[in-house]
Amino acid sequence: MSHGLTFSASARALTAGVALMVGGLASPAVAEEPTLSEEAFEASKQVYFERCAGCHGVLRKGATGKNLLPEWKKTAADGTVTEGGTLKLGQERLEKIISWGTEGGMNNFSDVMTEEQIRDMATYIMMEPPKPPEMSLEQMMETRKVYVEPEDYPTEPLHGRNWENFFVVIERDVGKVAVVDGDTKEVLAHIPTGYAVHVLKASEHHKLEEPENPGRFWYTMGRDGKMTKIDLWQNPENMLVAEVKIAYDARDVAVSGDGKYVIGGGYWPPHFAIVDAVTMEPKKVVSTRGVNVDGNYVEEARVAAIYTTPNEPTWIVAVKELGQLWQVDYTDIDNLGITKIDSAKFLHDGFFDPTGRYFQIAANASNAMVVVDSKTHKLEAIIDTDALPHPGPGANWVDPNCGPVAGTTHLGVGLVTVWGNDPEGHPDNAWKICYETETDGAGLFIRTHPTSDYIWADQTKHPEPEVQQSVQVISKETGEIVKTIQITEEEGNAAVHFEFNQDGTEVWVSKWNRSTSLEPNGEIVIFDAKTLEEIGRVKGLYAPTGKFNVYNRSNHVT
Amino acid sequence: MSHGLTFSASARALTAGVALMVGGLASPAVAEEPTLSEEAFEASKQVYFERCAGCHGVLRKGATGKNLLPEWKKTAADGTVTEGGTLKLGQERLEKIISWGTEGGMNNFSDVMTEEQIRDMATYIMMEPPKPPEMSLEQMMETRKVYVEPEDYPTEPLHGRNWENFFVVIERDVGKVAVVDGDTKEVLAHIPTGYAVHVLKASEHHKLEEPENPGRFWYTMGRDGKMTKIDLWQNPENMLVAEVKIAYDARDVAVSGDGKYVIGGGYWPPHFAIVDAVTMEPKKVVSTRGVNVDGNYVEEARVAAIYTTPNEPTWIVAVKELGQLWQVDYTDIDNLGITKIDSAKFLHDGFFDPTGRYFQIAANASNAMVVVDSKTHKLEAIIDTDALPHPGPGANWVDPNCGPVAGTTHLGVGLVTVWGNDPEGHPDNAWKICYETETDGAGLFIRTHPTSDYIWADQTKHPEPEVQQSVQVISKETGEIVKTIQITEEEGNAAVHFEFNQDGTEVWVSKWNRSTSLEPNGEIVIFDAKTLEEIGRVKGLYAPTGKFNVYNRSNHVT
Repeated sequence: MSHGLTFSASARALTAGVALMVGGLASPAVAEEPTLSEEAFEASKQVYFERCAGCHGVLRKGATGKNLLPEWKKTAADGTVTEGGTLKLGQERLEKIISWGTEGGMNNFSDVMTEEQIRDMATYIMMEPPKPPEMSLEQMMETRKVYVEPEDYPTEPLHGRNWENFFVVIERDVGKVAVVDGDTKEVLAHIPTGYAVHVLKASEHHKLEEPENPGRFWYTMGRDGKMTKIDLWQNPENMLVAEVKIAYDARDVAVSGDGKYVIGGGYWPPHFAIVDAVTMEPKKVVSTRGVNVDGNYVEEARVAAIYTTPNEPTWIVAVKELGQLWQVDYTDIDNLGITKIDSAKFLHDGFFDPTGRYFQIAANASNAMVVVDSKTHKLEAIIDTDALPHPGPGANWVDPNCGPVAGTTHLGVGLVTVWGNDPEGHPDNAWKICYETETDGAGLFIRTHPTSDYIWADQTKHPEPEVQQSVQVISKETGEIVKTIQITEEEGNAAVHFEFNQDGTEVWVSKWNRSTSLEPNGEIVIFDAKTLEEIGRVKGLYAPTGKFNVYNRSNHVT
Repeated sequence: MSHGLTFSASARALTAGVALMVGGLASPAVAEEPTLSEEAFEASKQVYFERCAGCHGVLRKGATGKNLLPEWKKTAADGTVTEGGTLKLGQERLEKIISWGTEGGMNNFSDVMTEEQIRDMATYIMMEPPKPPEMSLEQMMETRKVYVEPEDYPTEPLHGRNWENFFVVIERDVGKVAVVDGDTKEVLAHIPTGYAVHVLKASEHHKLEEPENPGRFWYTMGRDGKMTKIDLWQNPENMLVAEVKIAYDARDVAVSGDGKYVIGGGYWPPHFAIVDAVTMEPKKVVSTRGVNVDGNYVEEARVAAIYTTPNEPTWIVAVKELGQLWQVDYTDIDNLGITKIDSAKFLHDGFFDPTGRYFQIAANASNAMVVVDSKTHKLEAIIDTDALPHPGPGANWVDPNCGPVAGTTHLGVGLVTVWGNDPEGHPDNAWKICYETETDGAGLFIRTHPTSDYIWADQTKHPEPEVQQSVQVISKETGEIVKTIQITEEEGNAAVHFEFNQDGTEVWVSKWNRSTSLEPNGEIVIFDAKTLEEIGRVKGLYAPTGKFNVYNRSNHVT
């Protein structure tokens, strides 16, 4: 429809209206309805979006986190009905959960929210969720900003540095990314991006059609849906060249193999947008609302992650709540080909095997790794694992018994799970668990390098500071932990995420000082990849988390 | 999400709730808000669904008909803002429009709705539209009914008749289809189907993989979303073999080329369902909500029509409000391939060229015929036409000047538009208008046969009874009207829709007695295809409209 008024907008107004009206009525039947002033409602809506929506969903139907609707009813396949809802839990219990967290994985918010905010939030989540607005292609177009015109881009790197060993580092809690010279360890720039960048991607080498200068251009995605384009050939002060907002809430981004398009995936609206990678003009929007693998319609069907397939002219878009991987052909966006590959809920993050043919992704609420064959556009396998696998950028290596393997950490348990991933050379081991290694705590990231003897795993999700602050190193030869390294002992700090340098001789680990401090006192601790000894630090970073080495990321070194 | 409670359901309850509450409040600011009793609201909702939703949409955002939201605002590409809405028109004006219709194409409802119904409807459409519920795969499954188990299907026609010259006839206003023996003109059966069947389709001959016995099994789609399966080899009393409901509001259905699946398209929920053609078990649901060709999200993105491509293992699904044709590959429904072909709004009905490669469909609100290349899955052409083309099953023939051509009637004007459709043999004429022939009135259907010298066009949309009751016959040689035939003079009756018999010697035209009588006094008038003289009648039909000859439809004779 071409007119500006949408049903959604009116439904939203009505919903908010009811919430407020109900509170004002004197009828005893509704006297106990939760109620907030308009101001408190709006403030809670904003806090909910920033702190809660990531796990519980903007519409509060749950995903990684629990369903937070006032009332819900769930009918299992065998007909068993379960009922629940925030109204049943009530104000007091909700305040406690928000303040102190739960053993089920809910964080405590007593240190980041005021008592009033917690009280209001408990009330807010007992009220009907307001429906957020849509975002049209035209609205996206209006948010585009160009800082350097493409015709003014340099034709060679202006700074004379070894830019292929640059690290682009997420400074999560300040809405920036830092550019660090991997040779000199200097922090070259803090580039303003969207809020809490989740992932960034570069143009990569591709089997079919190479982009110009793979690794030169980087694209970030903020949680607020803002995509920024970074040119590493510019002098540091000019590296931010353009930006555009493609959603209100978003997570991932990817570049096409030919470098012509960037795709950004939205949590809300649930859609992806295809953007001209040169000009950052949005070209096409595709809704991901759909029917999930169980046959139920899902309005909030969010784009969890997006990847460029190294051998095919396609992206893989993981639609979290649908349990579907959409393989999107970008060769003709006016006649857009999409294969909707049924797998399992709820899809999260993944990585390719070393051949670039098979894509391995966590369906974390199904306790499974899902494998897609990007050549045939079909589901290849579902590997059952322990609780909540979360590989981050993942790790592939060669095991002495199983041949080529890949591994993942888990959000739900201190474990590294390793499976065979070479169906051609080792068909008996393919997509079967080779071994599991117990670690001290649940973590987020695993990483290795072809030249390294080790796999590194973090333990960021463990509640005890000492474990949270330590990483563990596993031998490729034995599958056993050979070293536990405490990265930091500073209160509130955690150890998170690994990246090797260009030649694989160094391992970089983030000492994440979280949002407890917005001073640039976060650090990256650098280890010798062979001796496992600390050999240096990058200082002066704001809350560093994910790190992306230009060479490794644009050459599929995983 | 796997639980039963959906946001939509709660939004719906809230919306209805507001409507009722607002009416009950004493505040002067809202005192003039339209209000209905719960009973009147529910009754109007039902009448709206049956009479109005087809053109104006369940969510009232308009399509063929106007936007009927209480308030709307439309911003044109040049920034011009238009505002409108039913609230602005007001109770009295709305009642008049509903009663007497408009020159813009709105029918008059004074003869089918009571004064009270009209009064309530005027109020109802000034209130926010209630959002209808979703429908899950499981819910569909529960509606399945099997009257004859597939293992009990006969292995040869039980009635010994020439079933390939059967006609299956829609008896629109009584929710039935009739089976007529084309050789003997006997009415063999009146089979109960969904409400007001729009279209029915048979298994067809296919270039790649033939179904068993093309033309034997027929699948109907009721406006209420009920799909029924008919077996023409059964004795008449057993021809209805199974049914399943796949939507609350629906229009079209198609069979896969291999005869394994039936696909049904929903208006609400906006989705399509893939059903096992043998057992009628629903297997897969795909939402068609999406972002239209202008870049705006459309919740009510309805499936207008679905077609089997004769040369490819795909269906073409026309998503009306998106202006997109989705070419859906049915070879692997777990890894479902869809090409979303951008074209023009609002898509309606179409037909293939004689080679089976090119699909020609009306984008009637864009005053265009859209052509898709089913081999490349790409848009081939957009042909600008006069107002509101509507080809129905369409017509292809050979013109002495332009070579192979196709034609359409128009809802908006008395005209037959003819264009070249042979890009290989006649590239200069391909997808260009060859000529236009003015008729006496706007119509719905055009039809011809390879052995015929003529093209037949109806004029059902013309307001004057005499024109509405007449059809016109055009010479393929000259492009001129050679005969006007008044099919009926009975009050309230109209002439509509044509079908040739198996060998092309007869033309069957419906004398549609509409809902003015539910007695079986509707008729089909049969003409000699050469002399154009009446040669017989099929009597004893309930409100006959569309007719489908088994041989012609399963052999792509258009």
